[in-house]
Amino acid sequence: MQPDKGATLEAYLTERKALIDEALERFLPGMEGGPEIIHQAVRYSLFAGGKRIRPILCVAAAEAVGGGGQDCLPCACALEMIHTYSLIHDDLPAMDNDDYRRGMPTSHRVFGEGIAILAGDALLTEAFHLLSRPEFTKNGNTEQRLQVINLIARAAGMAGMVGGQVMDLEGEGKNLPLETIEDIHRRKTGAMLTVSVVSGAILAGATAAQTAVLASYGQDIGLAFQIADDILNVAGDSVLMGKGTGSDISRGKTTFPALMGLEASRNRLSELVEKAAAHLAAFDHRAEPLRQMARYIMERNR
Amino acid sequence: MQPDKGATLEAYLTERKALIDEALERFLPGMEGGPEIIHQAVRYSLFAGGKRIRPILCVAAAEAVGGGGQDCLPCACALEMIHTYSLIHDDLPAMDNDDYRRGMPTSHRVFGEGIAILAGDALLTEAFHLLSRPEFTKNGNTEQRLQVINLIARAAGMAGMVGGQVMDLEGEGKNLPLETIEDIHRRKTGAMLTVSVVSGAILAGATAAQTAVLASYGQDIGLAFQIADDILNVAGDSVLMGKGTGSDISRGKTTFPALMGLEASRNRLSELVEKAAAHLAAFDHRAEPLRQMARYIMERNR
Repeated sequence: MQPDKGATLEAYLTERKALIDEALERFLPGMEGGPEIIHQAVRYSLFAGGKRIRPILCVAAAEAVGGGGQDCLPCACALEMIHTYSLIHDDLPAMDNDDYRRGMPTSHRVFGEGIAILAGDALLTEAFHLLSRPEFTKNGNTEQRLQVINLIARAAGMAGMVGGQVMDLEGEGKNLPLETIEDIHRRKTGAMLTVSVVSGAILAGATAAQTAVLASYGQDIGLAFQIADDILNVAGDSVLMGKGTGSDISRGKTTFPALMGLEASRNRLSELVEKAAAHLAAFDHRAEPLRQMARYIMERNR
Repeated sequence: MQPDKGATLEAYLTERKALIDEALERFLPGMEGGPEIIHQAVRYSLFAGGKRIRPILCVAAAEAVGGGGQDCLPCACALEMIHTYSLIHDDLPAMDNDDYRRGMPTSHRVFGEGIAILAGDALLTEAFHLLSRPEFTKNGNTEQRLQVINLIARAAGMAGMVGGQVMDLEGEGKNLPLETIEDIHRRKTGAMLTVSVVSGAILAGATAAQTAVLASYGQDIGLAFQIADDILNVAGDSVLMGKGTGSDISRGKTTFPALMGLEASRNRLSELVEKAAAHLAAFDHRAEPLRQMARYIMERNR
């Protein structure tokens, strides 16, 4: 499971993505546990072509500190389930009101609003069920697992992702200063990306110093990720994005390019990516995927 | 914290409710953790006059097996947070479309649908944050706490509460057989009531045999709870219910009185309550509140 030194990032991402997709399939509750429609709705969004950035970061962080990436797959999959729940709820008419994501009709367009809300609720809940399943004895000791549950819940909760989405919703149509925009993104996207890296590290037995450095890496790529997204939204190809470009502007959301211009946004993105990689200077070749993933964010299409 | 032998149930419930309200206030995330509006929305629903049945069951179960009820307050409060999230989401226009609950406008009527969805998401997430907070060292050992997180997530997830709500939503306007109605209620209400009792017991160090007996008690009062609710909905006082009586019928939901008649429903309720109390025969006086709570369900107005 250790990445070959010469392997390209693309091969690494493809291999890890396959591992995660297979694990998601295995970890999802069986069909006997509840009505069929909710299983369909959960699977529809979970297997809608996500790039699995968060679970791959979790696995790559575990590997970077010398752990086996396989061991933290339950946690990696739980992170993807929480991410997917947030997408389903964000797309709802009462939120961003998006009809398409990655070129496919959004959950509420296919299953109706009620089932879409419940599919999100189910994914969030099943993520914590997965994180606490007793049979994954290699997935950290009980203390590490409780710590990871706590950090993930914090990143997903009011001080993190939910809080960020609230600020985003409240900020629509307002001229927000750069500081507030960064705060929104730090909560809405950054917190979950950071905890993805940190969780993998903790479960693999990282030292406190290693975990702190990886958290800094996570914070930098978290902000980079959002700036890249904003740039794509303004300048990107609507086929790559799977939704109309310029949709943030039409909803009155303040973006980095709108605030500082496209050129300055690209420079800031590039700085953050270099800074993220620099945090990993003390790590050996096993952190190479993390270093490359920071750069990948610049070219990514989600 | 042990109930006085001679204390009435009413005094017990009042005292425990005060303890739980105070603990909820203390455990809620501070205002610095996220935008103010989400704190307001969370508090609005959490302090909207709930009777705290689930957290009191948790505390009472801990006491019944000889534990200190205070120790499991984090878990008790988490259960109430999950219950509150489910009420907020169930009331949404895309679900039951209720404008009032306990005589107060529902969350989405006050804060709008977007914030109401996020307030539910926040409560569900913060419940797992609370369940995993490292400072509550008396709240079970790490293994017991992981087990409780797992059982609560299972009860709240696709095989439990979310699944039940999906079946309820899908069943509207259909003639469902008694078996299906019982299955819906077992998932939608029963699973969380049962896990409330079971969690308190586990965290207080109950034996496997004690936990099994308390689970049976929880299942019986869970179904009794729903039958009592259905009876109130048909025959109850709309002032006591805080919403129009007969609202289940107007939404085309099948109820126990509709299926088996009011008299037979009352008999079934009474049988379940006696059966629930009978499970506790081997417990001493410390299980008296649990015995009395089973009977209380028959007379309750939530």
